[in-house]
Amino acid sequence: MSTAWTSRYAQRTKGVKSSAIRELLKITQRPEIISFAGGLPAPEVFPAVRFQEACLKVLEQSSSLALQYGASEGYEPLREMVARHIARYGIKAKAGNVLITAGSQQALDLIGKLLINPGDRVLLEAPTYLGALQALDVYGAEYVSVPSDEDGMRTELLEEPMRSGPKFMYVLPNFQNPGGTTLSEGRRHELVLLADRYGIPIIEDDPYGQLRYEGEHLTPLVVLDRENLRRDSGYSRGNVIYLSTFSKTLAPGLRLGWIVAPAEVISKIVQLKQGADLHTSTFTQIVAYEVAKDGFLDEHVKLIRRVYGERRDVMLAALSEYFPGEVTWTHPKGGLFLWVTLPRGMDCQKLFQAALEEKVAFVPGGPFYARNGDTEEGCRHFRLNFSYGQPDQIREGIRRLSVAVKAQLQQVSPTPAG
Amino acid sequence: MSTAWTSRYAQRTKGVKSSAIRELLKITQRPEIISFAGGLPAPEVFPAVRFQEACLKVLEQSSSLALQYGASEGYEPLREMVARHIARYGIKAKAGNVLITAGSQQALDLIGKLLINPGDRVLLEAPTYLGALQALDVYGAEYVSVPSDEDGMRTELLEEPMRSGPKFMYVLPNFQNPGGTTLSEGRRHELVLLADRYGIPIIEDDPYGQLRYEGEHLTPLVVLDRENLRRDSGYSRGNVIYLSTFSKTLAPGLRLGWIVAPAEVISKIVQLKQGADLHTSTFTQIVAYEVAKDGFLDEHVKLIRRVYGERRDVMLAALSEYFPGEVTWTHPKGGLFLWVTLPRGMDCQKLFQAALEEKVAFVPGGPFYARNGDTEEGCRHFRLNFSYGQPDQIREGIRRLSVAVKAQLQQVSPTPAG
Repeated sequence: MSTAWTSRYAQRTKGVKSSAIRELLKITQRPEIISFAGGLPAPEVFPAVRFQEACLKVLEQSSSLALQYGASEGYEPLREMVARHIARYGIKAKAGNVLITAGSQQALDLIGKLLINPGDRVLLEAPTYLGALQALDVYGAEYVSVPSDEDGMRTELLEEPMRSGPKFMYVLPNFQNPGGTTLSEGRRHELVLLADRYGIPIIEDDPYGQLRYEGEHLTPLVVLDRENLRRDSGYSRGNVIYLSTFSKTLAPGLRLGWIVAPAEVISKIVQLKQGADLHTSTFTQIVAYEVAKDGFLDEHVKLIRRVYGERRDVMLAALSEYFPGEVTWTHPKGGLFLWVTLPRGMDCQKLFQAALEEKVAFVPGGPFYARNGDTEEGCRHFRLNFSYGQPDQIREGIRRLSVAVKAQLQQVSPTPAG
Repeated sequence: MSTAWTSRYAQRTKGVKSSAIRELLKITQRPEIISFAGGLPAPEVFPAVRFQEACLKVLEQSSSLALQYGASEGYEPLREMVARHIARYGIKAKAGNVLITAGSQQALDLIGKLLINPGDRVLLEAPTYLGALQALDVYGAEYVSVPSDEDGMRTELLEEPMRSGPKFMYVLPNFQNPGGTTLSEGRRHELVLLADRYGIPIIEDDPYGQLRYEGEHLTPLVVLDRENLRRDSGYSRGNVIYLSTFSKTLAPGLRLGWIVAPAEVISKIVQLKQGADLHTSTFTQIVAYEVAKDGFLDEHVKLIRRVYGERRDVMLAALSEYFPGEVTWTHPKGGLFLWVTLPRGMDCQKLFQAALEEKVAFVPGGPFYARNGDTEEGCRHFRLNFSYGQPDQIREGIRRLSVAVKAQLQQVSPTPAG
């Protein structure tokens, strides 16, 4: 059928594989299955009525603007709103430091395009967000991974990888995907100091930062970088590019994210953005601005925190109740995910098949590791999402999953250990 | 400020320059200037009320779907609608052959990503759409240009460039941007036959095809390719990827375009699309579907044809009335643009400055030529848009422009020729 094309694909796309999650989600969308696989927000919290009001107003008062071509940088009032919003976390930025993207995923793609030559190394956590791997793979990135634990990337192991000359490092400090872990305050300082010492720029990806269900907000790397460098040298070198999104607070269907960076970096990315899609939908930007403004988004985030916080608690309680002691999991202080560790010898792929028979699904750990999805480490983990299911579904899903886990565990160590 | 980044940009972005149009548009947006520079649809024809109704309905009946993550391929009913829509032009496609993109610009970016290794040649018309050059430049494309005239790409000059082994050819057969020219039926056949003989795939970019103001619709290359190949060999090789968009018929602010290709090519592009931005906004896709369905889009396109057709006529009449005989222009049968040719010795950059003083603007021809914006050829042309301005503005703008043209002409040939 398409011999004309097959021989013509570019080198960079030879190794591109469909995301494992993408394929999995197809299986797990069968209605009888309780799925913890996706990373979906709960549709019950979408502010549909507020969106209706915003759409009516925008189309009544400014359809000529909202339906027309717009600036590649994004809708100016939305950029200003983002700048004001992040100021509360100590991030100092003007609208000129903000670029609106088609979700954080496009931010990762544009950063790959801007920075990666084939063979360039990227330093990242293991495990890490598989969408980042997917975005960077296509530009020929290689990876240096640093293990993480409940307190995030293990910074005591950072120096060696930094000496290997990575082009930049990619970190998710808050409620990491997939780990659900949060980089501790102490490690944040260490990480920023080391990055400065070795001259390694940082991409700080923070899609979940606002969704904290316990504890205090920790300082963003971009703020520590600025404070640290100001103390030393009197000015900021702007060593950090900060990414976030409206996908987890307003609605992912809008595809609205943003990049915060020094103006000179923004102006480079704007050029790439223009070649990539001219600009992000003017309509969704203006509607999002109308929905979010006048403090609505802040109130709405409180609602999301309550709903997701409860679901996290339900999942943690069900795991404690149903799961055998040989299995452990992270205790996320926010976000959408937790990360389960199986005892040695158990294989999350086999468990995935067994779980499907119990009508419950998750994402096996392999795809979240940079080098190779089949490493022993990847096989011992899986990711659970707790934002999407209703509390009773979460409880029932964990119960079903525990049946599969216990059966698999029985096969691995048939004789009780003690 | 950002030394950390400056030394780290990837090779591919070194040469990326901001689009000339982008910079120009900033100047030409001053309110006192009548601008023929942009490629903007007329905001008067945006169907704002229909959009309001669609938004209300979508958010009332399917907010869980419209605000949630969606499939990378696009919203299934919209893909089916596109497949039905293009069937009227003889293009046979199923939903599985259609991928929804963030405007045609993203289609060009994904095609560059899929097909171009640094140094690969792309065969294109001179002049051609500068956004295509911008999208492909970043992947390291080189270009082979074929001159065009009022009947589009001069296919009698095609064989030599095809022998040079281009990766693919890129053509805008209908009401080309910037030329306003249309590839004749005879040349379409020649082009498809030659492309088949030399095994060169074709990217057929057709953003304006529906906006025809006179004459009959001509057969798309993708249809000729299929017919030709079926006749020879009994099956279609699918040598053509066809691109189009809702930007010129519904609204560019939605950022909705589409790619039609063999299923195997679509499945490759879907993977790249997923890495690039996960998917196009579910919300804008569902809203566009609601707006367009039940024959509304067809009726709406008739309105656009009437409005733009009148504006084209006004511009052509004003050019005849005001412009000196030494200057010529194309007679577009559709689309948004016409292309002016100055006598030898005149320079469109100088004219651009003089025109600004008369408070009128256009886009100089240089950036529409692949190799070099400063060629003599580029300097002798400029592009005029006739879709955006009201008829009386168009008339007045052309009058102002004629003042600048005559003054410049006087400087070039002070003694009347005869």
